[in-house]
Amino acid sequence: MSKANLFYAQSGGVTAVINASACGVIETARQYPDRIGTVYAGRNGIVGALREELIDTGKESAETIAALRHTPAGAFGSCRYKLKSYSENTQEYDRILEVFRAHDIRYFLYNGGGDSQDTANKIAQLSIEKGFPITCIGVPKTVDNDLPITDNCPGFGSVAKYVAVSIREAGLDVASMCESSTKVFVMEVMGRHAGWIAGAAGLASESVDEPPHIILFPEVSFDREKFLGRVRECVREYGYCAIVVSEGVKGPDGKFLSEAGGTDAFGHAQLGGVAPMIAEMVKQETGYKYHWAVADYLQRAARHIASATDVEQAYATGKAAVEFAMTGKNAVMPAIVRGVGEEYSWSIGEAALADVANVEKKMPPSYITDDGFHITDAARAYFAPLIRGEDYPPYKDGLPQYARLKRVLAEKKLPPVQ
Amino acid sequence: MSKANLFYAQSGGVTAVINASACGVIETARQYPDRIGTVYAGRNGIVGALREELIDTGKESAETIAALRHTPAGAFGSCRYKLKSYSENTQEYDRILEVFRAHDIRYFLYNGGGDSQDTANKIAQLSIEKGFPITCIGVPKTVDNDLPITDNCPGFGSVAKYVAVSIREAGLDVASMCESSTKVFVMEVMGRHAGWIAGAAGLASESVDEPPHIILFPEVSFDREKFLGRVRECVREYGYCAIVVSEGVKGPDGKFLSEAGGTDAFGHAQLGGVAPMIAEMVKQETGYKYHWAVADYLQRAARHIASATDVEQAYATGKAAVEFAMTGKNAVMPAIVRGVGEEYSWSIGEAALADVANVEKKMPPSYITDDGFHITDAARAYFAPLIRGEDYPPYKDGLPQYARLKRVLAEKKLPPVQ
Repeated sequence: MSKANLFYAQSGGVTAVINASACGVIETARQYPDRIGTVYAGRNGIVGALREELIDTGKESAETIAALRHTPAGAFGSCRYKLKSYSENTQEYDRILEVFRAHDIRYFLYNGGGDSQDTANKIAQLSIEKGFPITCIGVPKTVDNDLPITDNCPGFGSVAKYVAVSIREAGLDVASMCESSTKVFVMEVMGRHAGWIAGAAGLASESVDEPPHIILFPEVSFDREKFLGRVRECVREYGYCAIVVSEGVKGPDGKFLSEAGGTDAFGHAQLGGVAPMIAEMVKQETGYKYHWAVADYLQRAARHIASATDVEQAYATGKAAVEFAMTGKNAVMPAIVRGVGEEYSWSIGEAALADVANVEKKMPPSYITDDGFHITDAARAYFAPLIRGEDYPPYKDGLPQYARLKRVLAEKKLPPVQ
Repeated sequence: MSKANLFYAQSGGVTAVINASACGVIETARQYPDRIGTVYAGRNGIVGALREELIDTGKESAETIAALRHTPAGAFGSCRYKLKSYSENTQEYDRILEVFRAHDIRYFLYNGGGDSQDTANKIAQLSIEKGFPITCIGVPKTVDNDLPITDNCPGFGSVAKYVAVSIREAGLDVASMCESSTKVFVMEVMGRHAGWIAGAAGLASESVDEPPHIILFPEVSFDREKFLGRVRECVREYGYCAIVVSEGVKGPDGKFLSEAGGTDAFGHAQLGGVAPMIAEMVKQETGYKYHWAVADYLQRAARHIASATDVEQAYATGKAAVEFAMTGKNAVMPAIVRGVGEEYSWSIGEAALADVANVEKKMPPSYITDDGFHITDAARAYFAPLIRGEDYPPYKDGLPQYARLKRVLAEKKLPPVQ
């Protein structure tokens, strides 16, 4: 086969390990100098292709590329930009193909969630129709863990570890002080549509008296009285109550609790998240002193406490994506396959992009206890291996040293789009 | 000298390393079997003395005590309970002395902030007047870094490291996405009265374009227009703006900004902290998409990312407190003394409790840049060594393994207080 260039793009919300996938892609591509010329990375994801803003990763040293493995967030920039269907937006697809053709790009590796895999799939098909076939390979990524087929998504294990570690630590804090101070602590975590992240926080409690005592899932309609009853019970039994609430928890009306507050006295939308709302509800009804935390981006950027399993899998999927391309595969995505048996093992399998695109994997109902407030043993068995192992970044003067890239753009070959 | 028992108590808000001090106290006390009998720890701090709830640390194995060094929060329980002056509350002081006498306690080590050092000092004086002299030694502790004489307070270095690491990581996240998504990120940190913690977050930015771009200090009156101008400037120059705000930031009226929101539509007090308020203000005025985080207890409990310097100093002050008692000192506190010269060094000095009690150390004005939005080189020189070094706890199955204590109470010898 002839030599061609490769285009890699990061898409959607970034994670603690998406750059580990980028590292896997670039390091592996560099092992095929006869087949792969330049690895371009989209500046700010697919937007970089549309604008012909192609970062020439060949200008980055081997050391810098290696450092991507321990660098959080999207080193090349990501974007929230979903291409419409081809019939709705012919121009954008044509533009991407035009840019690819101008730069002799015949490999497209798209690192993202379901929407991105859908886009990669469409480009694979379209490029054949247009007579300039592009090998399109997906690289899975999402903290939400919502991609089908793959056992889990790179990015999820690290946020899972962060939330479990954080509630274990903050729970100890509350336990220390509950006699005379805070009795209820509420930590809000991500997961607008599914309780994967909230559920993983449940790993921190190894017995019923350990934090978190209550988890509020998007999958379970919020029952105010039952919740308050359980809070009272925890304070009575354990002296305090540590709560993990998913940002996506909904009331009986099916609306997000975080939206229920409506507007404040100035007519502004409710400022807080769901954690302060839950905390205030507890205060009003029980009088317990509360504290609350909203980790927000801290949780998905927390490379300092990344899961080693997650880092390895993120790297492996990036590596496998290049290898798939080199073996002539197309419109597929490396998937993580969990081995059978008690001892956790995993390997890389293959999923057709058509089967991945736009399918959202929900958390199984069997992962939530009957009372709706915690995780089952089945959930623990699933989550536990994903947070295993520590993979610390290097430090200098007390701070993690993350890759600093040059991000040199390739010279443009096309006139700008009007 | 004859043999006597020792009473150790944790006081006020707990930290990631207060148990390292406890570890230093107990391990060192165990080296003086001829002088020190049982080391009791107050269950929930000084409250444990008032209630005669004395945890017999002799029932804990050497392994468990050693594990305290890497365990966050207060292993014996802490409390927010300030004894009044003796004239106002004779009964409580008398009760403490009665409990000490009943259990042959002649060493009192109090691990806390300014209020606690004041209490320890009073008990030292009073016990002499009462003819049952107690050797009272303070052990410094506070995330707020507000004790005088000591160069810094154990507990501060670790929260400083947490906030600097967190804003570096979250800042990278925002930088990745700012082209098409969040442009302004606000992280709220502790420090109701002084900007030490907020200032330490400034270490994360090694050049003007690196996060955090703006720090809002309690020491600087919030100037809305100037602040919004700087936000706009950052977004224009760097594409995004990462902000660290101290919970204690105040408006021109001298009131906490977090209180300015008043009540919401339901007449409830403003739910959110100052981060959501600042974020919403930016949104209203500039239209920039925002995210915000409130780390709350996560920051002071984050033993997983503790500063090795802080852990060592916390242990050393606990150790020194026992050694002070053994050499006949009284009413003093080990203080951390910074060595002179470019290379950071520290040693243990001595502060009289009378000089420590109720004196709040403020952050020097010279630590804040002229525009009021960042830290100076003088501040960097002060903060940098305090976050140095990593001291990771042991992990099992992906989670940090913190000490689990038996907390066996000594048999009571006194009738309960009516």
